[in-house]
Amino acid sequence: MPIVAVIGDGQLARMMQTEAIELGQSIRLLAGAPDSSAAQVAADVVLGDYTDLADLRIAVEGASVMTFDHEHVPTEHLHQLIAEGVNVQPGPDALVNAQDKLVMRKKLREIGAPVPPFAAIESVEDARAFSAAVDGAVCLKARRGGYDGHGVWFPSPSELDSLVSELLDAGTPLMAEKKVALVRELSAMVARRPSGEVVPWPVVESVQTDGICTEAVAPAPDLSPELAERAQQLAVTVAEELGVTGALAVELFEYRDENGQPTIAVNELAMRPHNTGHWTQDGCVTSQFEQHLRAVLDWPLGSVRQTAPVTVMANVLGGDTDPEKPMAERMLDVHARFPEAKIHMYGKTYRAGRKIGHVNLAGAELERVRREARLAAHYLVTARWADGYIA
Amino acid sequence: MPIVAVIGDGQLARMMQTEAIELGQSIRLLAGAPDSSAAQVAADVVLGDYTDLADLRIAVEGASVMTFDHEHVPTEHLHQLIAEGVNVQPGPDALVNAQDKLVMRKKLREIGAPVPPFAAIESVEDARAFSAAVDGAVCLKARRGGYDGHGVWFPSPSELDSLVSELLDAGTPLMAEKKVALVRELSAMVARRPSGEVVPWPVVESVQTDGICTEAVAPAPDLSPELAERAQQLAVTVAEELGVTGALAVELFEYRDENGQPTIAVNELAMRPHNTGHWTQDGCVTSQFEQHLRAVLDWPLGSVRQTAPVTVMANVLGGDTDPEKPMAERMLDVHARFPEAKIHMYGKTYRAGRKIGHVNLAGAELERVRREARLAAHYLVTARWADGYIA
Ligand SMILES: Nc1ncnc2c1ncn2[C@@H]1O[C@H](COP(=O)(O)OP(=O)(O)O)[C@@H](O)[C@H]1O
Ligand SMILES: Nc1ncnc2c1ncn2[C@@H]1O[C@H](COP(=O)(O)OP(=O)(O)O)[C@@H](O)[C@H]1O
Ligand SMILES: [Mg+2]
Ligand SMILES: [Mg+2]
Repeated sequence: MPIVAVIGDGQLARMMQTEAIELGQSIRLLAGAPDSSAAQVAADVVLGDYTDLADLRIAVEGASVMTFDHEHVPTEHLHQLIAEGVNVQPGPDALVNAQDKLVMRKKLREIGAPVPPFAAIESVEDARAFSAAVDGAVCLKARRGGYDGHGVWFPSPSELDSLVSELLDAGTPLMAEKKVALVRELSAMVARRPSGEVVPWPVVESVQTDGICTEAVAPAPDLSPELAERAQQLAVTVAEELGVTGALAVELFEYRDENGQPTIAVNELAMRPHNTGHWTQDGCVTSQFEQHLRAVLDWPLGSVRQTAPVTVMANVLGGDTDPEKPMAERMLDVHARFPEAKIHMYGKTYRAGRKIGHVNLAGAELERVRREARLAAHYLVTARWADGYIA
Repeated sequence: MPIVAVIGDGQLARMMQTEAIELGQSIRLLAGAPDSSAAQVAADVVLGDYTDLADLRIAVEGASVMTFDHEHVPTEHLHQLIAEGVNVQPGPDALVNAQDKLVMRKKLREIGAPVPPFAAIESVEDARAFSAAVDGAVCLKARRGGYDGHGVWFPSPSELDSLVSELLDAGTPLMAEKKVALVRELSAMVARRPSGEVVPWPVVESVQTDGICTEAVAPAPDLSPELAERAQQLAVTVAEELGVTGALAVELFEYRDENGQPTIAVNELAMRPHNTGHWTQDGCVTSQFEQHLRAVLDWPLGSVRQTAPVTVMANVLGGDTDPEKPMAERMLDVHARFPEAKIHMYGKTYRAGRKIGHVNLAGAELERVRREARLAAHYLVTARWADGYIA
């Protein structure tokens, strides 16, 4: 059986491991710490630093392919490894587009993919000019390293100058984008093999709270078949044009165009399994983690038929204080109330805002499924039922 | 998170590990070898011998519960561990009924569960008397240690004497059972918690070829609701009366009674996840592996709603010669032809008659699903399509 070397030790690598086991494999991890989310449950772990070329070489020794649970491996290392004969999927030329928000937008514009108006911001003057062009509707973003809303700002015109000069002084490379009047956010995921096969999943609605994904609903409720088709086609095009392999998430804005018609534009790309694809573990024939492994190995892709009319994924995000009741007891309370709830925990310690798990719930009635998934996730964080339920 | 100590290193322990990871745990294994099916993919492995009390003590150190992927741990060790405060699930008083086919049958008769006529065989005279009582329809069984049809014989009256004396001389403890006119074999599985909750899965048809399970179809086709209900109720009763915890498989004979009516009798009990429950991984909200972990931890049990009208599990059984084409390539050929096929491989080397994996296929049409699952499993063994298909 081929060895898949996974660079990264978070929950995405952890959930790849469960699928790898069933495929008769076991992944090799390059992990930063033995107690990281993935390393604690993996048999074949190399401890090391993903920014260190020597460590990357050790991790990939004898492996059929190198893949990732994040996009932060230095591009030059990947080029060097490829020169040495390593099979890197997705490759660095694709990955650069997931590392830098400005590079990504330029590339997307080049291939004709819809993106909101944007500009590089290298000075306060750049920012003022962009703000004038978009009537003050500015969304400022750190080009690199942002996640979960860290690195995104919506300054009022009066705050713009000081914010921009502050960030530039601190050495943060910036870009600006028009703040769009969101109807909601969507995610179109696909998997693509090096030899070309591409399979899109159903488009999901991605609910963001304070810049962080808290919920995903599959398929996106009330999405017109035309828009769904357009979003899927867009994701396929991005995968093909950018040469992405493995799982790709295309995060989308849904908003109204000048004529009041719903339309979409790309917000972000993730070249790996993604939070908005966790629902596939319990609502789809082939999960994103299995599909990612198959895709990077250039194996034929699996069916993405949904196994339930609707699946809701609700994130378990650490709150301000970890309740006294142990997590295992909170889990069993959720199991007792909702026998259909599928709880996935990442082996991470509780910390405010940290993704420590998620709940998937599949069923026929959107409103019930969504309510129960939310209640379950909220209970796991707080040990309280948001609806006042008493067991 | 609680630690579950699993005694055993086969595919059942391996598949518990994948579910444990998603529950935020990782099981502790007592494994005989580091390259065994489960140990090769587990992070927390104690190498040792399950017949050695000291090794069992090491494996269970700090664990919340000890459970098993087989029934062969010596009963006296389990009693000793319990005396030392270890939480053993299922307990030895339940397990004895899965270790000895005669003990099991006596117990089942005692609780009123239907079993074919049987007798202890300690001499050739015992065998002759039993044969006379059942008109020569004798099934002879080794009381202990049999599996996959090893330890089961159907002697003709003329062979009976010599077979019995040969086996007794070799020190094989024997029993005999009436050979019934099978319509087919069924399996009724349940999970039960120490505190009492019992949840039965849908009854499945278990297809046996040469004494070995080759296929399971869920739910059992054309089973009358009355008989299905009776089988489930029987499995619940067995779990309760015998004090079984965790997963329990009650393997059943379906045959016609004196009036030609279909009826059932118990053949075997397995007190752990079972081959006839593998379909639950891809056809049921809660798989038998997750349910077993929840049950032995005394956590509330999960929903056993089917996620497809029918799911077929086909075993991948090593043949006479391992084809030249590597298994990974066989897998990708299967994936290419059947995108809905879910392949589960155990990391075991190919050997004639050995269970090295299984294929689950879920769908709406029994005949198609069954044909495809069979073709897939056969291809994985032989690298040939039984229907002559050319890619
Ligand atoms: N141009 C925009 N217009 C309106 N809202 C935006 C815009 N860009 C980002 N947002 C909001 O901020 C969230 C985080 O922005 P994003 O660029 O996705 O950052 P991150 O990399 O932290 O996920 C988005 O999910 C969206 O809710
Ligand atoms: N009393 C019987 N009458 C008819 N067939 C039987 C009988 N007992 C066993 N068999 C057949 O032999 C197979 C193996 O017997 P079993 O007792 O289940 O042994 P094992 O422990 O090896 O699985 C059964 O699945 C069934 O097909
Ligand atoms: Mg984002
Ligand atoms: Mg049997």
